[in-house]
Amino acid sequence: MLDSYSINLPRKFIGRNCTLMALAIDNISSVAEELKEKTPKEILRYALTEFPDLYISFSGAEDVVLIDLATKVNKGPVNVFTLDTGRLHPETYQFIDQVRKHYGLQLKIMTPESDELQSFVAEKGLFSFYEDGHKECCTVRKTNPLRKALNGLDCWVTGQRRDQSPSTRSEVAVVEQDKVFGTDAQPLVKFNPLANWSSQQVWEYIRMFDVPFNKLHEKGFISIGCEPCTKAVLPGQHEREGRWWWEEATIKECGLHAGNIK
Amino acid sequence: MLDSYSINLPRKFIGRNCTLMALAIDNISSVAEELKEKTPKEILRYALTEFPDLYISFSGAEDVVLIDLATKVNKGPVNVFTLDTGRLHPETYQFIDQVRKHYGLQLKIMTPESDELQSFVAEKGLFSFYEDGHKECCTVRKTNPLRKALNGLDCWVTGQRRDQSPSTRSEVAVVEQDKVFGTDAQPLVKFNPLANWSSQQVWEYIRMFDVPFNKLHEKGFISIGCEPCTKAVLPGQHEREGRWWWEEATIKECGLHAGNIK
Amino acid sequence: MLDSYSINLPRKFIGRNCTLMALAIDNISSVAEELKEKTPKEILRYALTEFPDLYISFSGAEDVVLIDLATKVNKGPVNVFTLDTGRLHPETYQFIDQVRKHYGLQLKIMTPESDELQSFVAEKGLFSFYEDGHKECCTVRKTNPLRKALNGLDCWVTGQRRDQSPSTRSEVAVVEQDKVFGTDAQPLVKFNPLANWSSQQVWEYIRMFDVPFNKLHEKGFISIGCEPCTKAVLPGQHEREGRWWWEEATIKECGLHAGNIK
Amino acid sequence: MLDSYSINLPRKFIGRNCTLMALAIDNISSVAEELKEKTPKEILRYALTEFPDLYISFSGAEDVVLIDLATKVNKGPVNVFTLDTGRLHPETYQFIDQVRKHYGLQLKIMTPESDELQSFVAEKGLFSFYEDGHKECCTVRKTNPLRKALNGLDCWVTGQRRDQSPSTRSEVAVVEQDKVFGTDAQPLVKFNPLANWSSQQVWEYIRMFDVPFNKLHEKGFISIGCEPCTKAVLPGQHEREGRWWWEEATIKECGLHAGNIK
Repeated sequence: MLDSYSINLPRKFIGRNCTLMALAIDNISSVAEELKEKTPKEILRYALTEFPDLYISFSGAEDVVLIDLATKVNKGPVNVFTLDTGRLHPETYQFIDQVRKHYGLQLKIMTPESDELQSFVAEKGLFSFYEDGHKECCTVRKTNPLRKALNGLDCWVTGQRRDQSPSTRSEVAVVEQDKVFGTDAQPLVKFNPLANWSSQQVWEYIRMFDVPFNKLHEKGFISIGCEPCTKAVLPGQHEREGRWWWEEATIKECGLHAGNIK
Repeated sequence: MLDSYSINLPRKFIGRNCTLMALAIDNISSVAEELKEKTPKEILRYALTEFPDLYISFSGAEDVVLIDLATKVNKGPVNVFTLDTGRLHPETYQFIDQVRKHYGLQLKIMTPESDELQSFVAEKGLFSFYEDGHKECCTVRKTNPLRKALNGLDCWVTGQRRDQSPSTRSEVAVVEQDKVFGTDAQPLVKFNPLANWSSQQVWEYIRMFDVPFNKLHEKGFISIGCEPCTKAVLPGQHEREGRWWWEEATIKECGLHAGNIK
Repeated sequence: MLDSYSINLPRKFIGRNCTLMALAIDNISSVAEELKEKTPKEILRYALTEFPDLYISFSGAEDVVLIDLATKVNKGPVNVFTLDTGRLHPETYQFIDQVRKHYGLQLKIMTPESDELQSFVAEKGLFSFYEDGHKECCTVRKTNPLRKALNGLDCWVTGQRRDQSPSTRSEVAVVEQDKVFGTDAQPLVKFNPLANWSSQQVWEYIRMFDVPFNKLHEKGFISIGCEPCTKAVLPGQHEREGRWWWEEATIKECGLHAGNIK
Repeated sequence: MLDSYSINLPRKFIGRNCTLMALAIDNISSVAEELKEKTPKEILRYALTEFPDLYISFSGAEDVVLIDLATKVNKGPVNVFTLDTGRLHPETYQFIDQVRKHYGLQLKIMTPESDELQSFVAEKGLFSFYEDGHKECCTVRKTNPLRKALNGLDCWVTGQRRDQSPSTRSEVAVVEQDKVFGTDAQPLVKFNPLANWSSQQVWEYIRMFDVPFNKLHEKGFISIGCEPCTKAVLPGQHEREGRWWWEEATIKECGLHAGNIK
């Protein structure tokens, strides 16, 4: 029974009382246990009920299903932010705006801090990631803006799935405490409602419900990130092979979900 | 034991003595039974031993693995034909020529008969297939040239796989009598060495052995035919959805393997 | 006065009486002199009046203006043929069919003779032109089919312009005797109504009258021929630099207008 | 004689003494008169002699010739900044970095101020320019970052040419006082060394000296700005028709050269 958790994680206190919130956090593993067989929609319903102010993080790819599901649960617009790194594909910018209009979103678009970005590119140019790895660039263009987006939030929702990355995402829980962006003083809950879904299930949903999708998916792209760091994959290739392909296969995370890397 | 079939299908008579050939044909179902668990390479070895003059039909797509395998079995070039419909993708023409050079093939390139093609397009234009189906165009551009290519042959090899089309290819045998292009008087054997392989296995082979591939496969294309009748598919979509998508899903064959349609 | 020529080139005899035709041919240079300052439309009107059975040769590029002008002069469809070499761009096939439908044409689409083409590509593959020049391929795929298209005709119309090629087209007349495809016994008249127009004028006409155009023109292509032998040009580059760029600049003709090469 | 101006615009005082600088500014129209027939290289030599700390503004397009010329004049790297709006084409990012490496530049890459950009896109989304004009977006993404780049400078150099825009650039001088970004207290000189060159001359230079160029120029693009606000043009179309094509033709400036609009 999900109801039992509403005792531990009382809606009315959420985001207002850190002591109670901290207590609630202690229950996360049992909530995760309870939700782990639930559908994405049920997980989102739970999340939206307990954390009505939550934000969905939208990457401009197939995680649009989160927005579609949450809009149905909410019977109205939901809070969404996206990270505009300044290096997305033209198709991704078009898609993000299409989604904004289609779902009537007040979309929060986070951009890199100017001074930090200018220092970085003045020193290293626009393609340093091909030489010394994507971490530094992701920090400036994704992780730091994400930190700003999450500042003051109790809860965010991501489109992470276990099947996205055998090495780093195989243990993604449907809900977890985010220890990368939250702190003990300011705990942060992270829901991954698609954790159990396969790519196949996500795409069946998209086609069945005519959910808008990024045109890059019609050009051989599966996983989509920044333009210089994403490529189409061959038939049968794992989607993660289209990301940061010049780097070690085992640690492909951009810092948003750094907690996945043990 | 494969050897036992060499009694029934004696190499030295093949292609010379129709009576014996006809007898051999009677054994095809038991050969098929014997070969049905064999690897593509073993099936090709059997085919090349029994029918050294066989031709591999190459479509310009991932069936390049047949050429790669047969070249290894033969320790040298093999007979290959391809059907240039006059409407292939630029990438496919480039790939066909790349394969010709890479494997040192004497490649037979069949083209549509000029008078027949001119009558057809004078009457119906260049895109009639979108209006009344692909059959007529395939007949002029693929099936009739194929018939010419097969004329006088005892045996051909195709890249058909069961997983390519749940409706029309689910029972493709590794070897069968081709009753569409062969006759009782001039029997024709057709090998499908990849029948049991999945798309996944084909692509693992291509990547593992650095087999050249059509650049369209880097743009979201899986199954590849003529340019106007082929499109990239979405993630998780069946490859056959990228072919003749405006037509009934259940009967997507171009006439080359019409025998598949019951 | 153009009327005076109708005495020399009497409509009613055209195509029926070779002696008279031969006489008429003798007048071509004076007709050319008379027409040389006329507009493309006036030249087409003259041509269509004197040779009502003429054919316009359409390349699938900006020579569509000929069809547009002739349709206006004729107040109805005109005779048009095009050469489908089997290696045109997908965009060109789409454009040819769009033009066919837009102007209600009975379009004659000439294709290469199958045996000749098969022998050629069996011996040399699909890209021999990059190695030993485009002449042989053009002969099989363009010139010989053109010869068949012109067989029995008195008159054809082309989109040649003087500004297309400083070296080979600088003296193109608005009308001339075609000594390449015609003979003394079967004389052939060739009109080039756009001879005096610049590329700029052609494109002003296209935009002003909303004439349909090949989508390749939106991708940097100016002159358009076969896909492997055509490329986009840089800003300010002469359009002919996008054709057979690996060959000597001075002799870029495909054989259709071989008479231009002295 | 250029030398005479070195008396009025003495190198050693430039940028250090505003009174003298202000005096020098008074002479700009006579300097402009003197330089107006000079070649781009001569103009750049003058500029670099008088203002050794000047910055060249590089847009990622054919104005790369400024960098090439200035590097030759300087016999070494020059100061260059570029405005990364966050919406450039992938090809432009690649080109900017190629130029940075090719000429060994310490390239200053200006980016939009994060808070300002976030407010703008939160309110209006990512494509508001199609609805209410490009001015607001250009202000956030180009003009304000430019202002920061010019802050403290005495002199900048742009690639403006008279032939770029008949309506707004027909009177561009080779050197002028920049009253948009400079002030009386902090006067700013702006050189336009290419003012008299045509597009044709720029491209002849690029090809003759093998100057690297943006790959978009091989796809029909002439003028290049942000991705959503730039398109390829048809043959014979003016390059400015590929910019902000949904807006009134007569006032196509982004704010960088607002002084051009009277």
